[in-house]
Amino acid sequence: MITVSVINAPLKEVYVLRHIILSFAFVASIVNANDTVEKKTINEQLIETALTSRHALDILTDLTTNIGPRLPGTEADLRTVAWAENLLTSQGFDRVYKQPVRVPAWKRGIANASIVSPAPQALIISALGHSVGTPEGGITAPVVRVSSLAALSEISARAVKGHIVFIDHKMERHRAGKYYREVVGGRSNGASIAATKGAVGLLIRSIGTDSDRFAHTGMMLYDVKKPRIPSAALSAPDADQLTRLLTQHGKVTLNFELGSEHLESAISYNVIAEYDGAKFPEQYVLVGAHHDSWDEGTGALDDGAGIAIVTAAAKQIIDLPDRPKRGVRVVLYAAEELGLVGAKAYARENADDLHNIYLASESDFGAGEIWKLDTRFSDALSALSKKLLKELAPLNIEAGHNKATGGPDTSVLVNKGVPALTLLQDGTDYFDFHHTPNDTLDKVSPEALKQNVAAWSVMLWTTTNSDAELRPISLKKTQRVEAKELSTPQQ
Amino acid sequence: MITVSVINAPLKEVYVLRHIILSFAFVASIVNANDTVEKKTINEQLIETALTSRHALDILTDLTTNIGPRLPGTEADLRTVAWAENLLTSQGFDRVYKQPVRVPAWKRGIANASIVSPAPQALIISALGHSVGTPEGGITAPVVRVSSLAALSEISARAVKGHIVFIDHKMERHRAGKYYREVVGGRSNGASIAATKGAVGLLIRSIGTDSDRFAHTGMMLYDVKKPRIPSAALSAPDADQLTRLLTQHGKVTLNFELGSEHLESAISYNVIAEYDGAKFPEQYVLVGAHHDSWDEGTGALDDGAGIAIVTAAAKQIIDLPDRPKRGVRVVLYAAEELGLVGAKAYARENADDLHNIYLASESDFGAGEIWKLDTRFSDALSALSKKLLKELAPLNIEAGHNKATGGPDTSVLVNKGVPALTLLQDGTDYFDFHHTPNDTLDKVSPEALKQNVAAWSVMLWTTTNSDAELRPISLKKTQRVEAKELSTPQQ
Repeated sequence: MITVSVINAPLKEVYVLRHIILSFAFVASIVNANDTVEKKTINEQLIETALTSRHALDILTDLTTNIGPRLPGTEADLRTVAWAENLLTSQGFDRVYKQPVRVPAWKRGIANASIVSPAPQALIISALGHSVGTPEGGITAPVVRVSSLAALSEISARAVKGHIVFIDHKMERHRAGKYYREVVGGRSNGASIAATKGAVGLLIRSIGTDSDRFAHTGMMLYDVKKPRIPSAALSAPDADQLTRLLTQHGKVTLNFELGSEHLESAISYNVIAEYDGAKFPEQYVLVGAHHDSWDEGTGALDDGAGIAIVTAAAKQIIDLPDRPKRGVRVVLYAAEELGLVGAKAYARENADDLHNIYLASESDFGAGEIWKLDTRFSDALSALSKKLLKELAPLNIEAGHNKATGGPDTSVLVNKGVPALTLLQDGTDYFDFHHTPNDTLDKVSPEALKQNVAAWSVMLWTTTNSDAELRPISLKKTQRVEAKELSTPQQ
Repeated sequence: MITVSVINAPLKEVYVLRHIILSFAFVASIVNANDTVEKKTINEQLIETALTSRHALDILTDLTTNIGPRLPGTEADLRTVAWAENLLTSQGFDRVYKQPVRVPAWKRGIANASIVSPAPQALIISALGHSVGTPEGGITAPVVRVSSLAALSEISARAVKGHIVFIDHKMERHRAGKYYREVVGGRSNGASIAATKGAVGLLIRSIGTDSDRFAHTGMMLYDVKKPRIPSAALSAPDADQLTRLLTQHGKVTLNFELGSEHLESAISYNVIAEYDGAKFPEQYVLVGAHHDSWDEGTGALDDGAGIAIVTAAAKQIIDLPDRPKRGVRVVLYAAEELGLVGAKAYARENADDLHNIYLASESDFGAGEIWKLDTRFSDALSALSKKLLKELAPLNIEAGHNKATGGPDTSVLVNKGVPALTLLQDGTDYFDFHHTPNDTLDKVSPEALKQNVAAWSVMLWTTTNSDAELRPISLKKTQRVEAKELSTPQQ
């Protein structure tokens, strides 16, 4: 009879039952072995199960293999939404639903470039996201090189007019990726500034830290009052090559052709799953990741890993015998790459409910080991901060600052007063792969992924059961983040 | 008066004069500083100058920047020949000339691939060298995976007929690249074996050791009696992806399109430079490299580095005050990548003169530090071997075997009885970049390049002045090399 009832029970109850049986066995074995050994805490159990589970890796493998690239507004985007609904439904949440989001749509098309003179040869480029295309056959013009967006702002229009502007700003490597913000302006805003001075096209040195012949794509924005010029990134070795030719020969003429096109906007969806708390059912800890990716890789690091981590961590909470005091809400955002489109829609649609978000966070910085906890609480030395650091200490996570944005999408909520935290990953090599064809499953360390799930599980159990008051938060530093929301606001 | 005569003197004499002046200054300073210090040997001086010289790096930078890719039979190939003539002429050899070589010509064209079902997404491929193209729109067929060329030979034609064959043979990393030979057969001969069994196309896992989304091109051969099917390599992450899909779904349908075309054969040239010996003017030590490259990278490692190393080493000999007993001949071969085309032409054209080659060697395994000396002399324990090892010891070069091929092009000469040696480079990461777009200047370590020039200089001075008799050599092992001459015969 017991067997039959287990088979018929909802999936969640099977897990609970199994967990209870295992817990009994576990306690029994401890009692037998050594009467003085105490039972492990729930957080200790969560770490133990996370560090031995393949669940996150299985999710990530499935997503990157069976969907692959997930550009917003494409058919693959809708397949991803269906995949995300299925995934979350299978985890035992109380409810799973989706929220429609209108997203801009764009076709990449071909991207060819070559030196015309003095040394004819092909170069490797990638169109920047939502660039216009070129006429067929491309544009051919001499190149003017500037060392940064600031330098572009300073040179005369006469030097730029009729040229292809080349912003050659090298990004330095850093564990927290802090140099991204220094260089990403060239990608976001370079085209319109160059166009103002009469440039016919923009090329940038890829925003990345590798020396591979992959160009890094990423979103760009046109100022609606300026002419729209085609814009692309060069791989680092190609940027080096172009710089050497310019240094040696002075004048270099280049051709590049983009088949990019803007399409009709399309509908995508935020996919949301909820697991209710036992004591404060209206309150929840919101954990997120974005389900879209750039189209050239399979989005394993950006942000398949984030989906796998927050989903597997939430599943660990669902699998516990008791519910936490407040709930867990997982939000898989649409179209983050196009400018936090899904996150803004989420904040708009849930404007009346934001006070119920106890705190928010997001995993969107790859899959490196977590090494630091940043918070944005009313009190930097909150009892919750201390508790979290104590519980996360076995995972080698240290104290950070109290200016967390919680991740790119989460920054939208933080700007509306929602407390947040960031479990900061080691991003030393994140920008080697970010927005390139090389963002694939093999770049993810299965061990680091497990450590992430362990940390997120501990964070979820601790925060959903916390009694600390985290509001009101300081909004000072986040405003700046929103203005630069195309960058990944990590530090 | 002295000043005037220096300015008017041929470049070589200026160098000699400068060297003499420097030598006097050097000796004088030693005498002043410490009467007991002995004058450095010529080999010690060669090492010292090589380790502080930028000459090889300058050559390599110029070639990879101002020419870039150098596919045989293209206009870039002819620009390379002119570049090589200019380079060698500027070094002070006694004569520089070129030898015409007819080379097959081929256009790469587009190379697109995608999974049609069950998980639509693009894959990264590169046409294998001299593959035929597909019809427009490509070929669409289910995939059959085999683990190696041997496995392909064994499966039934029924399993292959109408399929795209996928040879999924992973290459292991090794300092001497010894696993290349185990896997390269799939690239060279896979298409015709697959075609015999009714396959409509061939895809191979790239012959490489990286996990980047670069497909490795390289030469393939059709059996003239079999149907010619289009053939391409998948990057390693794409091969992993395809394998996962096959494992999970059983049937995977794939489309791939190649715009490749065979063109009229063309003329290229071996470019040759000679510096005569003082005592045996008819004899010479032949050092080579190949001046062609695959078209996707700029051929920095394969084989721009080889050109830079042997040229800079020869220049070091030319710059010495005295000529060696026998001469130095530098041969920059055409069209090595297409099957040692230039080397075969060289051996044919110089058939009557091969007995004057004292020994031959080639630099064609990247730019890693040299760590081993292999020889092919009549006597493995020849006085010359011992002398070389003694002189090369300061550069951390150890004794190897006596079955050297001297490098791919040199193996043609070895097969005709010419003694050879190989200064074996550390190739641990050579096959990460080999035949990919990523074979660019930034992959070369300037310090390792200097060590290479030092070793080649010492080798040249020692061998051109040796009295040892190196003939006759054993031909036993080289025959096998010639049969597999599409591989890089290193070990």
